[in-house]
Amino acid sequence: MSNATIVFTPSGKRGEFKTGTKVLDAARELGVDIDSLCGGNGLCGRCKVAPGDGEFAKHGITSSLKNLSAEGKSEARYRDKRKMDASLRLSCQATIEGDLLVDVPPESQVHRQVIRKSADERYVPPLPAVQLITVTVEQPDMHKPSGDLERLKVALSPHLTSSFDCLDIDFHVLKRLQSILRQGKWQVTAAVYEGSQIIDLWPGIQPNSYGLAVDLGSTTIAAHLCDLQTGKVLASAGLMNPQIKFGEDVMSRVSYAMMNDGGAEAMTSAVHEALNELAVTCCADAGVESNLLMEFVVVGNPIMHHLFLGIDPVELGGAPFALAAQQAQTIRATHIGPMVNEGARIYVLPCIAGHVGADMAAVVLAEAPDREDSMTFIADVGTNAEMVLGHKGRLLAASSPTGPAFEGAQISAGQRAAPGAIERVRINPETLEPSFRVIGSDKWSTEDGFWDEISQTSVTGICGSGIIEAVAEMYLTEVINQDGHVDGAKAASKQAVHQDGRTFAYQIYDGSEGGVAVSVTQNDVRAIQMAKAALYAGYRLLADHHHSDEVNRVALAGAFGTHIDVKHAMTLGLIPDAPLSNVHSVGNAAGAGARMALLNRDMRRHIEELVGRIEKIETAVEPKFQDHFIEAMALPHKTANFKNLGQEVTLPQIFEVSSSADSNGDSPGSRRRRRRG
Amino acid sequence: MSNATIVFTPSGKRGEFKTGTKVLDAARELGVDIDSLCGGNGLCGRCKVAPGDGEFAKHGITSSLKNLSAEGKSEARYRDKRKMDASLRLSCQATIEGDLLVDVPPESQVHRQVIRKSADERYVPPLPAVQLITVTVEQPDMHKPSGDLERLKVALSPHLTSSFDCLDIDFHVLKRLQSILRQGKWQVTAAVYEGSQIIDLWPGIQPNSYGLAVDLGSTTIAAHLCDLQTGKVLASAGLMNPQIKFGEDVMSRVSYAMMNDGGAEAMTSAVHEALNELAVTCCADAGVESNLLMEFVVVGNPIMHHLFLGIDPVELGGAPFALAAQQAQTIRATHIGPMVNEGARIYVLPCIAGHVGADMAAVVLAEAPDREDSMTFIADVGTNAEMVLGHKGRLLAASSPTGPAFEGAQISAGQRAAPGAIERVRINPETLEPSFRVIGSDKWSTEDGFWDEISQTSVTGICGSGIIEAVAEMYLTEVINQDGHVDGAKAASKQAVHQDGRTFAYQIYDGSEGGVAVSVTQNDVRAIQMAKAALYAGYRLLADHHHSDEVNRVALAGAFGTHIDVKHAMTLGLIPDAPLSNVHSVGNAAGAGARMALLNRDMRRHIEELVGRIEKIETAVEPKFQDHFIEAMALPHKTANFKNLGQEVTLPQIFEVSSSADSNGDSPGSRRRRRRG
Repeated sequence: MSNATIVFTPSGKRGEFKTGTKVLDAARELGVDIDSLCGGNGLCGRCKVAPGDGEFAKHGITSSLKNLSAEGKSEARYRDKRKMDASLRLSCQATIEGDLLVDVPPESQVHRQVIRKSADERYVPPLPAVQLITVTVEQPDMHKPSGDLERLKVALSPHLTSSFDCLDIDFHVLKRLQSILRQGKWQVTAAVYEGSQIIDLWPGIQPNSYGLAVDLGSTTIAAHLCDLQTGKVLASAGLMNPQIKFGEDVMSRVSYAMMNDGGAEAMTSAVHEALNELAVTCCADAGVESNLLMEFVVVGNPIMHHLFLGIDPVELGGAPFALAAQQAQTIRATHIGPMVNEGARIYVLPCIAGHVGADMAAVVLAEAPDREDSMTFIADVGTNAEMVLGHKGRLLAASSPTGPAFEGAQISAGQRAAPGAIERVRINPETLEPSFRVIGSDKWSTEDGFWDEISQTSVTGICGSGIIEAVAEMYLTEVINQDGHVDGAKAASKQAVHQDGRTFAYQIYDGSEGGVAVSVTQNDVRAIQMAKAALYAGYRLLADHHHSDEVNRVALAGAFGTHIDVKHAMTLGLIPDAPLSNVHSVGNAAGAGARMALLNRDMRRHIEELVGRIEKIETAVEPKFQDHFIEAMALPHKTANFKNLGQEVTLPQIFEVSSSADSNGDSPGSRRRRRRG
Repeated sequence: MSNATIVFTPSGKRGEFKTGTKVLDAARELGVDIDSLCGGNGLCGRCKVAPGDGEFAKHGITSSLKNLSAEGKSEARYRDKRKMDASLRLSCQATIEGDLLVDVPPESQVHRQVIRKSADERYVPPLPAVQLITVTVEQPDMHKPSGDLERLKVALSPHLTSSFDCLDIDFHVLKRLQSILRQGKWQVTAAVYEGSQIIDLWPGIQPNSYGLAVDLGSTTIAAHLCDLQTGKVLASAGLMNPQIKFGEDVMSRVSYAMMNDGGAEAMTSAVHEALNELAVTCCADAGVESNLLMEFVVVGNPIMHHLFLGIDPVELGGAPFALAAQQAQTIRATHIGPMVNEGARIYVLPCIAGHVGADMAAVVLAEAPDREDSMTFIADVGTNAEMVLGHKGRLLAASSPTGPAFEGAQISAGQRAAPGAIERVRINPETLEPSFRVIGSDKWSTEDGFWDEISQTSVTGICGSGIIEAVAEMYLTEVINQDGHVDGAKAASKQAVHQDGRTFAYQIYDGSEGGVAVSVTQNDVRAIQMAKAALYAGYRLLADHHHSDEVNRVALAGAFGTHIDVKHAMTLGLIPDAPLSNVHSVGNAAGAGARMALLNRDMRRHIEELVGRIEKIETAVEPKFQDHFIEAMALPHKTANFKNLGQEVTLPQIFEVSSSADSNGDSPGSRRRRRRG
């Protein structure tokens, strides 16, 4: 074994590694942005890279394709099955055998997928946990000796509901107390946390303080910097969750923690660093002194919640899925990093259950199903779906293992939502010819200029919303039947339907204009059926417990909800039947809830109390869940179930209805008509 | 300028210093134990050293007297006035000019003066702030999901008076919670602080926890390790306060903080390190795991209190002497060092006023004047005297600037209490011949074998208790009159009285048997008069405010009280007149109070409440203080004032009374009689 140099483009990151090191491992070691979903098993194809051959003067390296290991079984199988271009290699399989330059194409870069979640702009009456109180403190008097702290407390008392005796001071503030009082000529501004703790002190008047609402997703971390006095959002920033390098989904991170000594600590540090980076970025963007950042409010799923708090998430990896702590936690910000105010606090919302996290608590706070008489269904869908069903009187929560299909994983041509991915699909009910849209352009593939517009990326695959629409359209056009079986008989007359081994597939794009060919295979349909069955079975279980089939409102949280077309989702029976106008994507509801908790401490008390009242249904121990799951595998009967899509729904009508009702759901036909007409 | 090597003996500490560096500064830099009281001004003579001349093979250095700077004005003046031996130099004056070996004689070593204060053994009913509670926690149940923390709280609740909602957990414990619960098979022992905070957790049963009661004196730090369950003292340890190198008394430390950037921080670190060392020593002595040390209770004067808490004491250096915080403080032990339990707490008793500290609060707790109907006077005398006067109904506190005379400073032959110092003096009323005792021997100088017994040290000077007795005896034998004037007329017939410049002095030892000659000069008498006037004027002021002249009990705290003979003190009018049997030295009362507060949290609440009720009298702003001071300069009328020493007191009687009534006050005559008889 010897060492070899590897350079990654476009980042230019380079390093020396022992020969035999996997390219993906080298990339992660160097912090190169590279995707992977299958745990490095050569299955997902997310980690494709293009090795260079020749001399690269700019990078001072001579690279040769021969300096990569020969293709092994897994990679060959993947190449064959997925028609991987000869210029590409799977970085999780190929090992470094000599000097190399390796390009990471855009579709393999996770970072391209980051969506900066914008803050919800609803008004929240400011009642921050951090109160700024300006007072004039009585000066020391030798005839009535008392400490400066005691006189400060006397001055603050009238502004607080808690008693004088309950008011305490942070040690680091106590140390500076006397000089600040004298600097301000006895007029000072105190930052008092939750009415009981002096966490900072300034000479004179200090009118501003800030807070950061943080939505700690397993893929992305979004932060909103707020003015705690006005409630205004001053800056927002997003970042890939750096824990991704330890495991693509949360369960693989739990495994990482179990298999590696110090694994949990490494993931905790990574997320703390990211949060610090976001805090600094937001403050810089808004021109706010980071020393005035007095509080963070953090939400996340239970595993992110534990890893953030530095708690080993191993107990969440298996039954009985015991949380270390369910209730809201307040910790010192110094626990996570040194660059903010020493007195800053971090408030972490309560978790609802072992699989239903503080992020869902934040969604519940934002969506407020507890304020409505009629039934609301809330779902946050990732590899696990967290859901809440209920109304004013009663709220139920559960989670269900949907798997990664909705995120484009385990799908033959699947990929995350990123430029080049097919995100919308329409099928002409007569010709069965497809039309599609690709992320990065708002033209349909059947429109003029489409290929010019996507020339930079071409077609790289199909993402979650694309595959859902494709399967729904296949169903509506009877390419598949209620069981999800692809109708091979159509292959004779319709070009798009073609044989794929022993089953049939529907081709959305044949690859003739560049990029990759994209088909929906029988297995792809099965994967979507499984995922939707898991989601729907979870809902059914909650509906059973609530003894009600009625749902008045559906809120879809997270990235999933942002991208899917709700009509297609309802067509597939992915979400319960509800009036279409009441089905909404609330993509940033967790962030919105975090912001509400940041700005108003009454809202904290409200969600703390509410979470205590939510009934938790554990799908894993409910025998009926399996029954519901099997039942939900089938696609719903096309007319009977679409009460809310209109009573006389038939296939062509669905196709047409979508053309005018919703701009997100523009059909290719309608678009073309408007443009040309 | 070049570098030179200096070696100190007996420690063997060595270092390289720029030429021109003062020997004392080099010693302090190296941590060599060397005394100094005058701020390095060549006045106190405490820092005398003996430079070596020749080759010292053992230390690998060739030293020459020429490698020290020539004697300057200050040193020459001191040598002349105090008859400093030619072999000695003042290390605060002499600078390093080449390689040197320097011996620090015992009398210049501060460490020799350390007295390990033994713990007061009174019984305190254990009711520690740290409760150990062993509980069995309900296991997680998927049907009733809740956090492990919440179930732990439910299990602890019945054992606590505070409500479930008020119970919180330290962040570092939360992180380990789940593994500890499982390790203990759901039986755990929690350490709960003040009924509201889980500060540690052990699997299974943990029956023991420990605490350290710390008396943070400006000269010495004493610590007592206690079993928090039984209340027993398991180990005690003492250490010189390492801050001594920044300033001999607290006021010079305040100056150091004012004059040096980072000076206060350096002093804070020094005392924290010392406390850590004491904690480790005590735990090792008692065979106790330092990780089971759960709490420290610390007392000290206001400046020590502030420096310990990391608060710059500058405000205590001048009027209005404003404390940063008067009330009791609780901080995390991690603020002061890493080697104890991460959850350990430090409780610091409240200060009474800007000049009356948490040490006096501890003395009040231990001596409990608030439980008596009759009047108690408590004094803790250092360079400043802190005092409390009162009874059940009303307590008053004040402080008075006694200066360092009682500690042997500003006295011509004065020194700290250390081997070689004259500590007891008797004057034959007829011959006026003196007899004395020296620390390190219990023989009087007039007894056989005295000089053999003190051959190691000889006579090095006179300490505080010695000078007080000497002046009292001089007064009783009419060597001085009521005004303190030394009667020169006696010089003709009595050998001990001799001319000293324009005034007269009384010679205790002529130096003929080795060591130094010791006389009490007119200036020495004045210094003692000033100090006693300050102390008595403070008492008078409190008595005025209390409208009472009666004192039933006198408690003398600190080292001062340990050494002086109370009858001589009363003779000089140093303390108020009270029944002799009710005048006690309570040398370790501050430590005893700290231990009471450590073992019993009701006692904390009691002293916190009591301190709030003590009336503070500020001597500096009381015009009557000056009047009392001037009046108290005179020595009391010998018969009129000695109500409690016996109505018919006359000089010889005093001399004789002391010979039989009190073993500490043995007269040389009586001793000799007993031995020979």
